[in-house]
Amino acid sequence: MTSSSSPAVTVRFQPLGQRGQVPAGISLLEAARRLGVGLSGVCGGMGVCATCRVVVPPESRDALSPPSDTEQKRLGPDALARGVRLACRATIRDSLQVFVPPESLTASQRTQIEGRQTLVRPEPVVAAVDLHLPPPTLSDPRSDAERLREVLGRPVRLDLEVLRQSPLRLREWEWATRAVLRGDEVVALLPPGTPLMGVAIDLGTTKLAGYLLNLETGETVASAGAMNPQLAYGEDVMARITYALQEPEGAERLRQAAAAGLAQLIRDLCDQAGTASECIVEAVVVGNTAMHHLFLGLSTRSLGLAPYVPVESASLDVRAREVGLPLAPGASIHLLPNIAGFVGADHVAALLATRMDEADHPTLLLDIGTNTEICLAVEGNLFSCSAASGPAFEGAHIRFGMRAAPGAVERVRMIEGKVWWETVEGAPPVGICGSGILDAVAQLREAGLLNERGGWASDNSASPALVSSAEGGPEFILVPAEASGLGRAITLSRKDVGEIQLAKAAIAAGWQVLLEEAGLQESDLARVLVAGAFGTYIDIGHAVAIGMLPRLPLDRFEQVGNVAGTGARMALLSRTERERATHLARRVRYIELTIHPSFRGRFAQAMFL
Amino acid sequence: MTSSSSPAVTVRFQPLGQRGQVPAGISLLEAARRLGVGLSGVCGGMGVCATCRVVVPPESRDALSPPSDTEQKRLGPDALARGVRLACRATIRDSLQVFVPPESLTASQRTQIEGRQTLVRPEPVVAAVDLHLPPPTLSDPRSDAERLREVLGRPVRLDLEVLRQSPLRLREWEWATRAVLRGDEVVALLPPGTPLMGVAIDLGTTKLAGYLLNLETGETVASAGAMNPQLAYGEDVMARITYALQEPEGAERLRQAAAAGLAQLIRDLCDQAGTASECIVEAVVVGNTAMHHLFLGLSTRSLGLAPYVPVESASLDVRAREVGLPLAPGASIHLLPNIAGFVGADHVAALLATRMDEADHPTLLLDIGTNTEICLAVEGNLFSCSAASGPAFEGAHIRFGMRAAPGAVERVRMIEGKVWWETVEGAPPVGICGSGILDAVAQLREAGLLNERGGWASDNSASPALVSSAEGGPEFILVPAEASGLGRAITLSRKDVGEIQLAKAAIAAGWQVLLEEAGLQESDLARVLVAGAFGTYIDIGHAVAIGMLPRLPLDRFEQVGNVAGTGARMALLSRTERERATHLARRVRYIELTIHPSFRGRFAQAMFL
Repeated sequence: MTSSSSPAVTVRFQPLGQRGQVPAGISLLEAARRLGVGLSGVCGGMGVCATCRVVVPPESRDALSPPSDTEQKRLGPDALARGVRLACRATIRDSLQVFVPPESLTASQRTQIEGRQTLVRPEPVVAAVDLHLPPPTLSDPRSDAERLREVLGRPVRLDLEVLRQSPLRLREWEWATRAVLRGDEVVALLPPGTPLMGVAIDLGTTKLAGYLLNLETGETVASAGAMNPQLAYGEDVMARITYALQEPEGAERLRQAAAAGLAQLIRDLCDQAGTASECIVEAVVVGNTAMHHLFLGLSTRSLGLAPYVPVESASLDVRAREVGLPLAPGASIHLLPNIAGFVGADHVAALLATRMDEADHPTLLLDIGTNTEICLAVEGNLFSCSAASGPAFEGAHIRFGMRAAPGAVERVRMIEGKVWWETVEGAPPVGICGSGILDAVAQLREAGLLNERGGWASDNSASPALVSSAEGGPEFILVPAEASGLGRAITLSRKDVGEIQLAKAAIAAGWQVLLEEAGLQESDLARVLVAGAFGTYIDIGHAVAIGMLPRLPLDRFEQVGNVAGTGARMALLSRTERERATHLARRVRYIELTIHPSFRGRFAQAMFL
Repeated sequence: MTSSSSPAVTVRFQPLGQRGQVPAGISLLEAARRLGVGLSGVCGGMGVCATCRVVVPPESRDALSPPSDTEQKRLGPDALARGVRLACRATIRDSLQVFVPPESLTASQRTQIEGRQTLVRPEPVVAAVDLHLPPPTLSDPRSDAERLREVLGRPVRLDLEVLRQSPLRLREWEWATRAVLRGDEVVALLPPGTPLMGVAIDLGTTKLAGYLLNLETGETVASAGAMNPQLAYGEDVMARITYALQEPEGAERLRQAAAAGLAQLIRDLCDQAGTASECIVEAVVVGNTAMHHLFLGLSTRSLGLAPYVPVESASLDVRAREVGLPLAPGASIHLLPNIAGFVGADHVAALLATRMDEADHPTLLLDIGTNTEICLAVEGNLFSCSAASGPAFEGAHIRFGMRAAPGAVERVRMIEGKVWWETVEGAPPVGICGSGILDAVAQLREAGLLNERGGWASDNSASPALVSSAEGGPEFILVPAEASGLGRAITLSRKDVGEIQLAKAAIAAGWQVLLEEAGLQESDLARVLVAGAFGTYIDIGHAVAIGMLPRLPLDRFEQVGNVAGTGARMALLSRTERERATHLARRVRYIELTIHPSFRGRFAQAMFL
């Protein structure tokens, strides 16, 4: 029974809590789109891809149409009994609440959730004290600083910039202020009542991620991402090191590019939260060793040549102003320790966030990026290496490759010979991002269109799915010209597949060498944590299928998101976590892959699909 | 008996040790001039002024002509028995050694001597350690910093600039280096064998004085002076504070001017000593509170208004690079504590150098400058004030006034109605500097040409010594046109005399108020220390005669030179002296003259000559 004018019902999507009114009778997928929930739906709501799975709690089940035949077939009785539904098939009858599991969320919304997770007990290295100073008089003309020390009751030092900026402000605020102390130093004098803010930054080779935290409550009040402006000078670490070495002022240009990008990111965070950047009193920055060095203005010359020696590997505090970040006048930036030339503070942060040192059973952590840092934890021992996986998963070196921006094909399914795809934000397809390429390669291999060497099974442009390209050689049509936002077909070439093979072989050879060093087999792994932006978006089953990840039951995998960013936030909030990071870095046994005797053989072997 | 060709004899002048060969038969004064000894001689060697007194040790007395009638008359038997001679009257017969007492030296050579005096036992806050690091290998790819920590055997931090600059250098030096530590921080890595250098700076309102010291031996290896480039923005403290307040960017312009002047001074010191400024690992800067604030870029707004409150009065360490000084990458600058808005770190340095806190008997210290800081020590109590004496003694506001540069009349004597003068470096007279003006006023008053109000006794241009000037009012001809380097007469006007009266009245009222506060009489003073560049050059007898200094026997006075600079050097060399400075600053009882009930009356009274 359908009324001519459907009654409005309320739908609430968890975990992000988006809610609103929709007319009864529409599908859950349609409701999600109207309410701005990034729910996946590769086949466009045809009931064939099963990527729009949601979970409905018992009290809301009657508010939906009963499971359709398609759902019975695609989900099976166990899933249905747990309340799993296909959002495109379930019609809304009444107000209800729905849970969207991470794998059904689009990438951007996964990141949002990740940004809100619970961290550690706030125990920051800075502390705020609210003060009211006695104004000076002719009979008490002591200095501003002496007045402050008297009221604080401690012989503190005042940072030079605090001394420079605060006299006029103290008078403006009529001698009331919030003093921020770091040890025995006053690093900021803030207006009374200002919350104590900190910023945690993951300075990636390709991407920057920033988190603004309230240091007193531990809450993440804003998060933002941006591209690393250093990309203009080379897309991977080696290209940047070369640029820094060979161009006059190259290193300084790279340093300034990173600083400018981070300054903009910090402004974005502050705009989101309605905070002034001068109220940020502490920061933590993590990145790989080369990013760490370029950010600080340290020489990367010896990072580019064997034996790949960092300038500094211990944790470090520098003044924000000395590296060009616009924070509170005396704010410090804490840099977590580096482990080796190619295993940096971002890896330490990842270990910190995942508590790898406490793993009870053999656990593998892969932080997939332009460099993929891998750690194997076995009985309290930590083995780490860095695999040069390259920027293919960021879309580089792929003919139609692009980053996960709107219009990037992010999911691909081949169902009964037909290609389905989904793009970021549902925009018309204009290219393919890493997770889309991975999907495509895995599905083409599964469908028998690719052989194990990565060549076309039927190397013949007469094959219905392949076309000859202007660049020579047949290519697979992923998106036909008529559906493409480019006005021409989006295709995948043999060379594109080769790039993915190189990337996944580097990663696979990496974890295989670590297993060998620890004397373990693939099947001994109890848990595999897949981290990094790309690692968060990929279809794990596909990554296993092409041999990038160990061949294990899927329930042993966990997509843990930007753990480097999470670790940075933990170190921002807690001095105990900083100490823990130092201990962690010391415990890691670093394996240099390039000189490992079995690396080359394993790499060659891992090239097969 | 005189030979037609005089034999060469060797003469050595102490304490500077200048020596050389001169022909026998010339006067000691002539020999001094040939050997570049700055020996005074106001009357030009006529035997009338007695300013060229020297002391000849017993073993050298026979090498000179016997005392002449003039010497018998001018020096008297006691002085002659002690070996005192007039250099212009004593003729050299044979090789000899001569001592030049400070009062017979020209200003510039007094400063040279002062620069060499013994200070304190070196106990610097920085320490050098010579290291040889193991080079990195593939099996030991630890960071440069870890290598350094291992060899040092301590968990040190490395300053960011050290990290930035040293990796390439360590390799250039083949892993041998001299690490400079300040506490647990490495502030410089120097080439092996580099001496540990420090710089002490007296940042005066008008003049800059710098001293380069070897921190291990305590030796002053170079000293230099320069004008403060801030003079372009106002000649006294108040003018600069006003400029900083009223001009946009005014404070920053003043800061940069001081930094540029000090950077040039440091380069000059390094050129003298053949040292690179990057080898200077520590600095001490002293100045009055306004100079201190302008140098650091602190607001001087509240210094310019009652109750004259400094931003910071405690001692302070800042990075040299944060205030624009070109020292070692991680070098710090130590600033001694300030006492009040107009009694700054330079006064603390002066107290330190003169050990005022240990004075057994009532002792007065006057550090004469544009501001004159005065301290009275009585039984362990220290009373300090600041008198606004103005820049007249620097030559400002005086019609023919100039600084003590070549050609400045620095000494004046009226002997039997005739005016004698002496100029800096003997150049043709082009103006009068502070000590010359003071001499002139005192001698004119003594000769009865000035009355006690500072007017001409015979206010009549018909008086033989006076001329009418274009500016109106009679003026005294100090240097007639024919002897002047200007091509016209150098004169002294009623207004010039008035400026000196204002200056000396401010100073006199200052020490009188301090005596009053301590319940003492002028005659209770056991010692009077006269400091500062000007204080070093003046004729004490004349300063007493015009009432600027207490009316006491001349043997209670001591001209102690640039004690602020000496104190700065002591604090540079010794951490104990820094602590002592902090204690000293706390012990001083500051007297604000402008609100003292008896200041105005005493000032008015002290205007009389």
